[in-house]
Amino acid sequence: MCQFKNLLPANGAWKQDVSNWLQEDVPSFDFGGFVVGSDAKTATLLCKQEGVLSGVPFAEEVFKQCNLDVEWFFSEGELLDPSSEENGKLPVARVSGEAKNILLAERTALNLLSRSSGIATSSKKLVQLAKAASYSGIIAGTRKTTPGLRRLEKYSMLVGGCDMHRYDLSSMVMLKDNHIWSTGSITNAVRNARKACGFSMKIEVECQSEEEADEAIEAGADVIMLDNFTGNSLKIVAQSLKKKWAGKKHFLLECSGGLKLENLSEYLCQEIDIYSTSSIHQGVDVIDFSLKIDH
Amino acid sequence: MCQFKNLLPANGAWKQDVSNWLQEDVPSFDFGGFVVGSDAKTATLLCKQEGVLSGVPFAEEVFKQCNLDVEWFFSEGELLDPSSEENGKLPVARVSGEAKNILLAERTALNLLSRSSGIATSSKKLVQLAKAASYSGIIAGTRKTTPGLRRLEKYSMLVGGCDMHRYDLSSMVMLKDNHIWSTGSITNAVRNARKACGFSMKIEVECQSEEEADEAIEAGADVIMLDNFTGNSLKIVAQSLKKKWAGKKHFLLECSGGLKLENLSEYLCQEIDIYSTSSIHQGVDVIDFSLKIDH
Amino acid sequence: MCQFKNLLPANGAWKQDVSNWLQEDVPSFDFGGFVVGSDAKTATLLCKQEGVLSGVPFAEEVFKQCNLDVEWFFSEGELLDPSSEENGKLPVARVSGEAKNILLAERTALNLLSRSSGIATSSKKLVQLAKAASYSGIIAGTRKTTPGLRRLEKYSMLVGGCDMHRYDLSSMVMLKDNHIWSTGSITNAVRNARKACGFSMKIEVECQSEEEADEAIEAGADVIMLDNFTGNSLKIVAQSLKKKWAGKKHFLLECSGGLKLENLSEYLCQEIDIYSTSSIHQGVDVIDFSLKIDH
Amino acid sequence: MCQFKNLLPANGAWKQDVSNWLQEDVPSFDFGGFVVGSDAKTATLLCKQEGVLSGVPFAEEVFKQCNLDVEWFFSEGELLDPSSEENGKLPVARVSGEAKNILLAERTALNLLSRSSGIATSSKKLVQLAKAASYSGIIAGTRKTTPGLRRLEKYSMLVGGCDMHRYDLSSMVMLKDNHIWSTGSITNAVRNARKACGFSMKIEVECQSEEEADEAIEAGADVIMLDNFTGNSLKIVAQSLKKKWAGKKHFLLECSGGLKLENLSEYLCQEIDIYSTSSIHQGVDVIDFSLKIDH
Amino acid sequence: MCQFKNLLPANGAWKQDVSNWLQEDVPSFDFGGFVVGSDAKTATLLCKQEGVLSGVPFAEEVFKQCNLDVEWFFSEGELLDPSSEENGKLPVARVSGEAKNILLAERTALNLLSRSSGIATSSKKLVQLAKAASYSGIIAGTRKTTPGLRRLEKYSMLVGGCDMHRYDLSSMVMLKDNHIWSTGSITNAVRNARKACGFSMKIEVECQSEEEADEAIEAGADVIMLDNFTGNSLKIVAQSLKKKWAGKKHFLLECSGGLKLENLSEYLCQEIDIYSTSSIHQGVDVIDFSLKIDH
Amino acid sequence: MCQFKNLLPANGAWKQDVSNWLQEDVPSFDFGGFVVGSDAKTATLLCKQEGVLSGVPFAEEVFKQCNLDVEWFFSEGELLDPSSEENGKLPVARVSGEAKNILLAERTALNLLSRSSGIATSSKKLVQLAKAASYSGIIAGTRKTTPGLRRLEKYSMLVGGCDMHRYDLSSMVMLKDNHIWSTGSITNAVRNARKACGFSMKIEVECQSEEEADEAIEAGADVIMLDNFTGNSLKIVAQSLKKKWAGKKHFLLECSGGLKLENLSEYLCQEIDIYSTSSIHQGVDVIDFSLKIDH
Repeated sequence: MCQFKNLLPANGAWKQDVSNWLQEDVPSFDFGGFVVGSDAKTATLLCKQEGVLSGVPFAEEVFKQCNLDVEWFFSEGELLDPSSEENGKLPVARVSGEAKNILLAERTALNLLSRSSGIATSSKKLVQLAKAASYSGIIAGTRKTTPGLRRLEKYSMLVGGCDMHRYDLSSMVMLKDNHIWSTGSITNAVRNARKACGFSMKIEVECQSEEEADEAIEAGADVIMLDNFTGNSLKIVAQSLKKKWAGKKHFLLECSGGLKLENLSEYLCQEIDIYSTSSIHQGVDVIDFSLKIDH
Repeated sequence: MCQFKNLLPANGAWKQDVSNWLQEDVPSFDFGGFVVGSDAKTATLLCKQEGVLSGVPFAEEVFKQCNLDVEWFFSEGELLDPSSEENGKLPVARVSGEAKNILLAERTALNLLSRSSGIATSSKKLVQLAKAASYSGIIAGTRKTTPGLRRLEKYSMLVGGCDMHRYDLSSMVMLKDNHIWSTGSITNAVRNARKACGFSMKIEVECQSEEEADEAIEAGADVIMLDNFTGNSLKIVAQSLKKKWAGKKHFLLECSGGLKLENLSEYLCQEIDIYSTSSIHQGVDVIDFSLKIDH
Repeated sequence: MCQFKNLLPANGAWKQDVSNWLQEDVPSFDFGGFVVGSDAKTATLLCKQEGVLSGVPFAEEVFKQCNLDVEWFFSEGELLDPSSEENGKLPVARVSGEAKNILLAERTALNLLSRSSGIATSSKKLVQLAKAASYSGIIAGTRKTTPGLRRLEKYSMLVGGCDMHRYDLSSMVMLKDNHIWSTGSITNAVRNARKACGFSMKIEVECQSEEEADEAIEAGADVIMLDNFTGNSLKIVAQSLKKKWAGKKHFLLECSGGLKLENLSEYLCQEIDIYSTSSIHQGVDVIDFSLKIDH
Repeated sequence: MCQFKNLLPANGAWKQDVSNWLQEDVPSFDFGGFVVGSDAKTATLLCKQEGVLSGVPFAEEVFKQCNLDVEWFFSEGELLDPSSEENGKLPVARVSGEAKNILLAERTALNLLSRSSGIATSSKKLVQLAKAASYSGIIAGTRKTTPGLRRLEKYSMLVGGCDMHRYDLSSMVMLKDNHIWSTGSITNAVRNARKACGFSMKIEVECQSEEEADEAIEAGADVIMLDNFTGNSLKIVAQSLKKKWAGKKHFLLECSGGLKLENLSEYLCQEIDIYSTSSIHQGVDVIDFSLKIDH
Repeated sequence: MCQFKNLLPANGAWKQDVSNWLQEDVPSFDFGGFVVGSDAKTATLLCKQEGVLSGVPFAEEVFKQCNLDVEWFFSEGELLDPSSEENGKLPVARVSGEAKNILLAERTALNLLSRSSGIATSSKKLVQLAKAASYSGIIAGTRKTTPGLRRLEKYSMLVGGCDMHRYDLSSMVMLKDNHIWSTGSITNAVRNARKACGFSMKIEVECQSEEEADEAIEAGADVIMLDNFTGNSLKIVAQSLKKKWAGKKHFLLECSGGLKLENLSEYLCQEIDIYSTSSIHQGVDVIDFSLKIDH
Repeated sequence: MCQFKNLLPANGAWKQDVSNWLQEDVPSFDFGGFVVGSDAKTATLLCKQEGVLSGVPFAEEVFKQCNLDVEWFFSEGELLDPSSEENGKLPVARVSGEAKNILLAERTALNLLSRSSGIATSSKKLVQLAKAASYSGIIAGTRKTTPGLRRLEKYSMLVGGCDMHRYDLSSMVMLKDNHIWSTGSITNAVRNARKACGFSMKIEVECQSEEEADEAIEAGADVIMLDNFTGNSLKIVAQSLKKKWAGKKHFLLECSGGLKLENLSEYLCQEIDIYSTSSIHQGVDVIDFSLKIDH
C-alpha cells in the first residue's frame, strides 16, 4: 500500500527545512534546556480537537533531529476524535529522550502538526462534500501557499484527499490573460510554451469564453481552466466542449475562482474534471495539539 | 517618527528568506517567463478585502529581487477599505519592470502580503476591543508561529498594535511546569535560569496559584503568568499580588490560555499587564490581494 | 520572439550556482589578481572551433559577478564558424573591467561556455540528421546529466533544438520495470502514481511488448516508452498501437536505448513521437574558447 | 546540577559552525590523511599551561564530526594545573579513532579549546579579584567579540563565572548617545524602543550624568549604564540614585569603560550591580594545548 | 598502503556536494518512491564497458545518504573488463536497502561513477602511452574542469595515474602573458607573486622563448612552462636550460598546449618533467554503468 | 604597485563571511535601528592606540553591505599614531549613510579592524626586530588561527610584513612525527605525499636531528623544519646542512617552536630561511577603534 511518507526522499531538502525551523526557535542558547537538564523523560503528544492527522513525517524528523524517539498511536490521514476522551485530550504519540530535547522539539513539532492537520482537515471536508453530491472528479488546491512551507502544505492536501495542482512555476505551464496579451493569441502562447517545456509537461490555459477554450484545445492545451463562469453557464460550456471535441482532442476541464465549502455545490458537474480552490489550505483553522512531559 | 521597516536590518537574513521563497516557486526554469518575455510593463496591486496593510517591506524586497520598481499608495499599518471602490478593488501599489519579472514576483509577493495583513488585521481587532473596554495594557502574541515565518508574523503583530511576546527560546526565559518539576522548585528553577541568562534578560514563570506566584516573585521572576485562572479568580489573585508586593518587588502579570475575540472581555482587568493569545496570528483569515498587468 | 535566457528567473538559484563555481576556483586568495592589479582592460572572447554558441546567460552572469561588462557579437544558438578567420579564431564577445577581474572570471566562464556549446552542438547535429530524414517529431535528452550541472545541460539541449525530457524525479513520473515489479502490475503502478502526482503531471511507462503498452495505455499512461525494440519491430508495434487506440486514448510513443548519430536513422518513423538519447549531452566534445586581454 | 553544555541545543547552528571550521582547514584534499591512512590510533590531549578548561562541547563536536571518540579527564570549568606534571603536560582527554581523522580534527579542536579556555581563564581572574574585594555583584563581558565566534566567546565568559551581557542587537536594547540625539530625548528614545521590543525585553540607557539617569529611570529603563564616571563620582551617583528611587522604580546600575584587572578595584562598590568589560575576552592570552598520537 | 579515499576528509564539503547532487534530482516529491514503497531489496551495479573504476567513495556517499549498504567487488583504480561476461555486464557492487532509496540513489550514483571512471580511463591511457615510450616523468591535467565538479575530476586524474596539476587560483601561482604584461617584466611578476604567496607555494611562469625561461629561472620561478614550442625546438630548449642551470637553480620544466593521445609521442623527452593536457578529463567518453534491482 | 586588497576576489566567499558576521549581530530585529531611524548622518572612525592599520577591505565590505559610503584617510599597512592628536583619537575614515545603518555596521566593522590591526601590529614588530638584527629572511605565522577567521588573520600577517605560511591541510604538505611513525620512515612519508600532492605543491618535513634532515632532503622534501633545537645547535646544524647539500639538492630551512619577541634574537642566523611563530597572531592585543556619529 502506498504511504504518504514515501513521497519524502531519504536525503531531501525537507530535512534541512526542519533543521532551519528548529534553529529559528533557538538562535543562540537554549536557556530552558540549561534549567531542565538532560534526564531521560517521556512525553505524550495530545490532540485536543477533531481533525485529520497530517504531518507525521515532518514531526518525526523534528523529534529525530533532537535525538528523541517517537511512537505513534495513529496513522497519517486518520481521523482524530478527542471528544470520546474523558479530559478531551487524545494521546496521539509518545516521545522519549532527554528532558531538554523534548522541550526543544516541542514548539516546532506542534506548529507543524497543527498547520498540516488543519489543511488536511479542510481538504477532507471539501472532498467529502463533493462525494456526497456524487461528484467523482478531482478537488485540488492552488499555489497560494505559505512561503517556505509549500512542500508541507501540498503534502497536507494529498493527505486530505485532494490533488496538489501544479507545484510551482517550473511545473505544468499555466497561461493566463497576461501571457496571452503578451504573445498576441492563445495559439501563439501555447506554441511558445511547448517549445520550452517540451512533451513531458502539461500546458493549461485560462479561458474566459467557449471560443477561447476552442482555440486553446485546438492549439494543444492539456487543461482548460474555465474562469469566472457562473454555475449555470459553466455546465453548458463544459458539456458543449466535451461533446464537440470527443475523439478528436484530449483535454481536461478545470473550474476555479472563489470556490469554498459554502458554494461548491452550485458548481459541481461531471463534465468538469477538476475544481481548484485555495480555501482548503489558506487561512484555515489549525488543529490544536500539545505535548506534556509525563510525571 | 518610528517606522516598522526600520526593524529590518539593511543586511539581514530576512532578505535571504525572501530569496529562498522566490526560488521555492521556480526551482528550475521559468516557462511562463519564456512565453511573456521581457517587455516593460506596469501592474497594479489590488486589495479586495477590508484589512490592515502589513508586510510592505517584505513585498518590496520580493519586487526588488525581481528587478522591479514599486510605488506604494498606502503605508504600513493603514486600514485598506475597498468597499468604496466601484469594482471592490482598491489600488494599493504600482509595480513596473519586465513582464516576466512581474509574473515571477506575483505569487510570492501576494502570499506574503495576504498572510501578513491577515495577522495585522486580527491583531488590530483584538487591540481595539480591549481599548474599547478601557483596558490600557498590552495584548501580545505567542511563539505558535508558522515555522520559517516567525519574523514576518511577529512583525505583523507589531503592525497590528500588539506586542510580539518573546521571540524564541534564546529570548526571555519562560519556566513552565516541566521546568519546575525538573528542578524541584520554582526557586531553584529561577535561580538556575538566572545563572545562564544573566542580568540582561527577563525570566517569566507560569504559576497555577497565588502561592506559586509568591514564590516566583520572591525568587526574582520578572513576569508572572497566571495560567488557567477563571476570569473572576484571575482578578482577585492579580489584585492581591499587586498589592502585597507593591514597593518590594517589581514584576509584571500576564494572563494566557484560550483567549480570543469572543471571550477576552471576561478576563480584562487593569492589574493584568499583558494578555497573550495565538488567536491573533494562528489560523487567521488572510486578506485577499491580486496583481494585474495594466493593458 | 522567445529568448532562451528568459527561462532563467531574475532571482534564481542558478545565480548562486555561478557564484559557487567562481568560488570553487579561488577558495582563499587570488594571488594572480594581486600580481596584475586593478587597471582597466578589455579582453576578447574567441571561439576556436565550429559549433553552436550556448551558455551565454551563464557566462554573462560570471562576468557580472566579477564586475565586468560584456558585449556579445553573436546570439545564443547561432553557429560559430572560425574557419573563415585568418588565425582561426572568431571574436565572440568583448569583456571589459579590471585586469584582476578578467583573469578571475576567465576559466569559469570558458569552462561553462565550452561545455554548454558542446552539448548544443551535438544536439543540433542529431536534430539535423532527423530532419534530413524527414522526421518531424522530437529528439530529446535524458536525466544522465552531470551532477550539479543539470540546469545548464538541459538548457543547452533546448538551445540545440532538442527537448529536455523530464527534468528530475519530481517531474513527469516514469514507471520502469522496478516500479512495476514492486506494485504487481502496470495498472497498479499507474494508478498509484496518479494518486500522488495528480492531474497536472504526465506519467510515462516503459514497456517491453505491445501487450504491456496496451495495459499502460488502458491504465491512463500519457507516454509509452518502447524499450529495447529492434528498428523493424519498433515500427510495427508503433503503427499497431497508434491505429488500435486512435480516438480512444491519447498517448505519445517514445523510443529509447543506445540511440546515437550513427544509428538513429534505422529507428526513425513518424509513429514514434520522441526519440531520446544521452548521446547528445553525455561525454560529448567541448567547443574550444579562449579569452585574451587586448594589448 | 546545571551543566554548561546543556545551553547548546541538540540541533543547533553551532554544529554547522563546527563543520564550517573544519572545512576551512581542508577545502579540497587531505594530503596528510592520505599519507597516514586509517589505522586505529589513540591520542592524548595535553594542557601545557595553567588555566580554566572551557570549550569542551565544541571540541567534542569537532572530534565527533571526524568520527572520533573522546574521553575527558576534567570537566568544563575546572582549573587545569600542569605544573605538578613531570614534563609540564597535563593529560586532559583521550581521543581514539582513525589516524587520519585524529590529524584532521587536531588543529581545529586545539584552536577552539585554547581560545575558549583563554577567555574563561581571564574571566575567572577578574571575578576572583572582585570577590576577594567582597563585591557580590556581576562581572560581565561585552559585544566586542570575534566575528563568527560570539557563541563560543559568550559561552566561555559564563564558564569563567561572568555574565554574557546582551547577546546581540536583537537582545536587550541599549540606547547610547547616538540613539538619544536622534530622538531628541532619553524619554522619547525609551518610549520608542519599548514600542518595538515590548514587555519581554529590557532596555538599558547609557547616561553621562545623574540627571540623565533620573530621566532614564523615570522613562522606564531597566538598566542604567554610568559611563565615563571616575571611581569616586561613580560611587556618589550610584548611592544617590539607589536611595532616591528606592521603592518607586526598579532598575540596575552598570559601570563600564576601560575596566581591567589592573584598575577594577578602584571602581568596585555594592551600589553598582554590574561591571562590564571587554578585557576578559578581547585580546586575551590563549591557553596552550596539544594533541599527541600515542606510540 | 595509501588509498585514494583517504584524500577525502571525514567531515568535508564533498559530502555536502553529494547531498546537493541528490537534491538536484528530487526538489519536491519522490513520486517513484511513493509507487515502489519501502520494501527491502538488493540491486546489482553493473559495468557495461571496459574502463578504470573510479569514484567509489563518491558513489558510496550517495548510497549512504540514501540509507543504503553497498559491497564492492572491485577496488578504486582497478580495470573493469565486462567482455568476459556472458551478457557483457560485469557486477561491480551490490546495493541493499529500501526499494525507494535504491531508485532515489540510482541516477546520481551512476552519473558520478560514469564520469569519474571516464576520466580515470582516459588518464590511464595517456600515462600508459608515455610509459611505453620509456618516459618516466609526469602526465598532468589542467584547471579546465567542469564547474562544481573539480574535486571529483582532479581525484579521477589521480586514480588514473596522472598528476592533478594546480588545484585553483589559490594554489601554485601561474604567471601567464597577461600577468607579465601587467607588471612590465617576468622578474617583477615573480617578485610580486612571491610577496603574497610566500615560501610555501610554488610559482610557475609561462615562457615563449629560452630567454624568457632564463629570466624566470633567475627570478626564482619553481616551474617553467614552455608554451607553443614545436616538438623539436622543445627538446633543444629543454636540454639547454637543464644543462645551463645545473647546480645553480632548481626548477621543473613543463610542456603544454594541444597535447593528446594522438600527438604526445612527438613531444616526449626526459628533460621535460611534466606534460599537461585537458584531453584526459575534458570532453572524454563516460564509462557506462547501470543499477538493476534483483528479482 | 601591488595592493593587499587585490588578494580578495570580486566574487568571493569572504563577502559571504562578512554577511554572516553582520547577521550574527542581528538575528531577528534591529530595535536600535527602529529608534534612530533612517536620517542621513556621517560618522568618524577613530583610532585610539598606536598600531598598523589592517583589515580595510573587510571593514569596507561591512559598510557597503549596510549601504554606507566610506572615505579612508589612511592606507592598509600604514602606521597609525594617535599620540599627536589632542584628544588622543586619530580620524581614520568617514562613514556616511542612514543613521540606523551606521549603528548596524559599527560593532562588526570595529571588531574586524581591531583584530586585524592587532595582528598586523604584532607581525610588524617581530619583522622589525629581525631586520634590526640584520636578518634578511622570512618571519612567518602558523595555522593556529581563530576558527572561521583564517582568511582575515593570514591576510593581516601579510599586511604586517610576515609570510602566511601554509594556508590549510590542502596546501603545502607538512609531515610531522605522527605521519612518519605511520609510514615507517621519512622516505616513505615523502614518497607517499608526493603521489597525491604532485609536482605543484611543496612538502615540508619536521626533523629532530641532522640525520632526519638528511633523509628528508634526500627524499625530496622542499622545506626542512628544525624542531626543538636550541639556539646554538640550530645554527651548527643549519650551516652543516646548507654546506653539505649545496648544488645537489634545493631546500629551505625553517625554525619553529616557542619563538616570540622576547627570544627570537637568540635563534636568528642567515642559514635559516624561515622563522615561524603563532605569537604574531594568537592571543595578541587588539588595536582600539571607535565610530562616532558626527553631531
